[in-house]
Amino acid sequence: MNNAKWNTLDLKYIWHPCSQMHDHESLPLVPIKRAEGVYLYDFDGRAYIDGISSWWVNLLGHSHPYINKKLQEQLESLEHVLLAGFTHPQIIRLSERLCVLGGFEKCFYADNGSSCIEVALKMSYHAHLLEGQHRPKFLSLENGYHGETLGALSVGGVGLYKDTYKGLFCQQLQTPVPQNDADVTNALQALEKILEKEHKNISAFVLEPLVQCAGQMHFYSADFVHQASQMCQALGVHVIFDEIAVGFGRTGTLFAHQQCQVKPDFLCLSKGITGGYLPLAVVLTKNEIYDKFYAPYTENKSFLHSHSYTGNALACACANATLDLLEQEQVLEKNKTLSLYIQACMQDHLGGLKGVANLRAQGMIFAFELEGCCPSKRLSLAIFEKALQRGLLVRPLNNTIYLMPPYIITPEQALMAVQAIQSLVLELA
Amino acid sequence: MNNAKWNTLDLKYIWHPCSQMHDHESLPLVPIKRAEGVYLYDFDGRAYIDGISSWWVNLLGHSHPYINKKLQEQLESLEHVLLAGFTHPQIIRLSERLCVLGGFEKCFYADNGSSCIEVALKMSYHAHLLEGQHRPKFLSLENGYHGETLGALSVGGVGLYKDTYKGLFCQQLQTPVPQNDADVTNALQALEKILEKEHKNISAFVLEPLVQCAGQMHFYSADFVHQASQMCQALGVHVIFDEIAVGFGRTGTLFAHQQCQVKPDFLCLSKGITGGYLPLAVVLTKNEIYDKFYAPYTENKSFLHSHSYTGNALACACANATLDLLEQEQVLEKNKTLSLYIQACMQDHLGGLKGVANLRAQGMIFAFELEGCCPSKRLSLAIFEKALQRGLLVRPLNNTIYLMPPYIITPEQALMAVQAIQSLVLELA
Repeated sequence: MNNAKWNTLDLKYIWHPCSQMHDHESLPLVPIKRAEGVYLYDFDGRAYIDGISSWWVNLLGHSHPYINKKLQEQLESLEHVLLAGFTHPQIIRLSERLCVLGGFEKCFYADNGSSCIEVALKMSYHAHLLEGQHRPKFLSLENGYHGETLGALSVGGVGLYKDTYKGLFCQQLQTPVPQNDADVTNALQALEKILEKEHKNISAFVLEPLVQCAGQMHFYSADFVHQASQMCQALGVHVIFDEIAVGFGRTGTLFAHQQCQVKPDFLCLSKGITGGYLPLAVVLTKNEIYDKFYAPYTENKSFLHSHSYTGNALACACANATLDLLEQEQVLEKNKTLSLYIQACMQDHLGGLKGVANLRAQGMIFAFELEGCCPSKRLSLAIFEKALQRGLLVRPLNNTIYLMPPYIITPEQALMAVQAIQSLVLELA
Repeated sequence: MNNAKWNTLDLKYIWHPCSQMHDHESLPLVPIKRAEGVYLYDFDGRAYIDGISSWWVNLLGHSHPYINKKLQEQLESLEHVLLAGFTHPQIIRLSERLCVLGGFEKCFYADNGSSCIEVALKMSYHAHLLEGQHRPKFLSLENGYHGETLGALSVGGVGLYKDTYKGLFCQQLQTPVPQNDADVTNALQALEKILEKEHKNISAFVLEPLVQCAGQMHFYSADFVHQASQMCQALGVHVIFDEIAVGFGRTGTLFAHQQCQVKPDFLCLSKGITGGYLPLAVVLTKNEIYDKFYAPYTENKSFLHSHSYTGNALACACANATLDLLEQEQVLEKNKTLSLYIQACMQDHLGGLKGVANLRAQGMIFAFELEGCCPSKRLSLAIFEKALQRGLLVRPLNNTIYLMPPYIITPEQALMAVQAIQSLVLELA
């Protein structure tokens, strides 16, 4: 079977996520036969550098021999057992490591990013309730993104994903994200005003520290994260850090909030946690929260949230293997040099080019806006298509082009990716 | 490491789903070392029959050699690639098979049951909106269960899971489920009354056909499902069947609604779909729905829902392997005999026993209520604990004891499970 045949069969049966299927009348889907390292290979023999780590999940490359080996070993003993009343070594090891690495005390598991945001929201609301406080609102940052379930969706701020469903939402509040460092004082004042009036109604403040990824890769002040969080916590408002996209080294430190000198009440992790292999999500929290729920059953204080595959043994095996590699191969230390190289490379090839604005980097995220172009198709689709022709997978957010490659990308491969982007910018701008 | 050591380490770091952690002061967690067929094995050398298929997910036993083999083969080529703009053979094959088996036309994927209910709710609401109709309410059955995200949770009816969060919910309506066959007319009249007044405000009616599993394994009339669905559809209210627990042969047919002579607008599947290996969920629907969203991008009709690991290749490989086995080994056909055997076995050992009420079976679900017992601990925990001591995993829903074993359970193993239940009933009643 070649690409065209798989494409036809796919379109007959599959409704793809986050897609206008009509686009595929002119743009064929790319059927992937195999993947290895940074490369995806299709059925027509073409290779693509996975420049966005397959939606920001892959950290150490596809088909990694060590993760494969660890997953196979786990498969030989236990694929899955329910996590209520039961447990298994992979999840115990993983939980201990995550707690130690993050400075937390308890792990509560889910399957995907949306679900773990839901867990954190419910846990926060419920914890206040157990103290006799009804706080029916959540506060979030404008331009944030926290998943797409109707509960989780209500705290997001990207209109694209939520305007359609606005008739359905629960109560929620939003406060501005600083546009730049000069804007931090304004943003803090806006937050202060909301908190003054509403803090007794607010369970939690939820935000992605440092980078709003789906919000056009908006980088913002660590100092704002620090001060805003302290302001909330001083008033009894919980802080939830959504590090689903920015965790596991993506911003330069293992967790993004480690650059903000503040600890949240809840830390949400997913995506990179399994190295891009399997769905898994976790909420890390403190015994101070856990203890509020800990009581004889008859007191009705249990946190009754569950998903069938919570704590799946195969996914936990991948997560432990990923942490092994991050530690043993000193990946985050090496990323420092790699990040500087890619930054220089982007500066060399894109800096000063017509249409290229706000070239920026944070750890292993590299982004810029392409301005003043009028392609015949809409810009993001044109870029996606032209990059594919050049052997690169990028998926722009409107006019924001970004690279979020697996950490094992070599300088040569990174250079090829940047050159592909340079060439399409020259064609489009 | 023995059970006790794993237990201590677990309790230090893990907050278990759907659990009051205080219970584990007296009841140790069971750490599982390996699993095979219907058996789970702990670190103290004890074996347990997995009488509830690890929260209703496992169909063909643990560590199944064929599913293991197919998962390993997939691992050698592709572990995961994003599903937007890309695709892969496993998901194409799976989608074709599911559409053909269920008589649907399109598959939209998610990771867990809650998420796929969210997809169906959003899709239904959005589809009406695209026709110029704002229908902000969902209708569901009393005593239903559809997951625990704040959106999905709002349409459930089990107070245990939702009362705490009632301050947060969106608008929703509920209609009674028939208590027995004589009650069908009443239930239909109640539904008719709601629809008469509200149908223009209701996007969809969501229900688990035939069995409300988390709702104390309440079995109800196929005729009600048939008539209620037709009533809704005639008024333009979509019907969503939640077959997350009852799908894949559990009630005797591949899909439960095949016993109801009616086709829903949306069919939600998860749990057994991967044979109990990995999280995966799917919403099946018709081109009539799909086509409403299909338009040039500029018309803003896209259904923008996504989860990072949507359509995971490893999970799809397990799902295809599971379908292979169901077909090749004629599992559902064999289940008919097996179900009759287990029913007879339960009748022999439990029928007429003091405290045993409403002994019933539907396909591979076997249940009864234990009445009039006053154990020193709460009943469900006492049963769970006493069953474990007898080498059986069951997890009662209040006083409802049920077996939902993997389909590969042998008559001998089923007899052992029933005898274990008989012995604990004799002790408790």
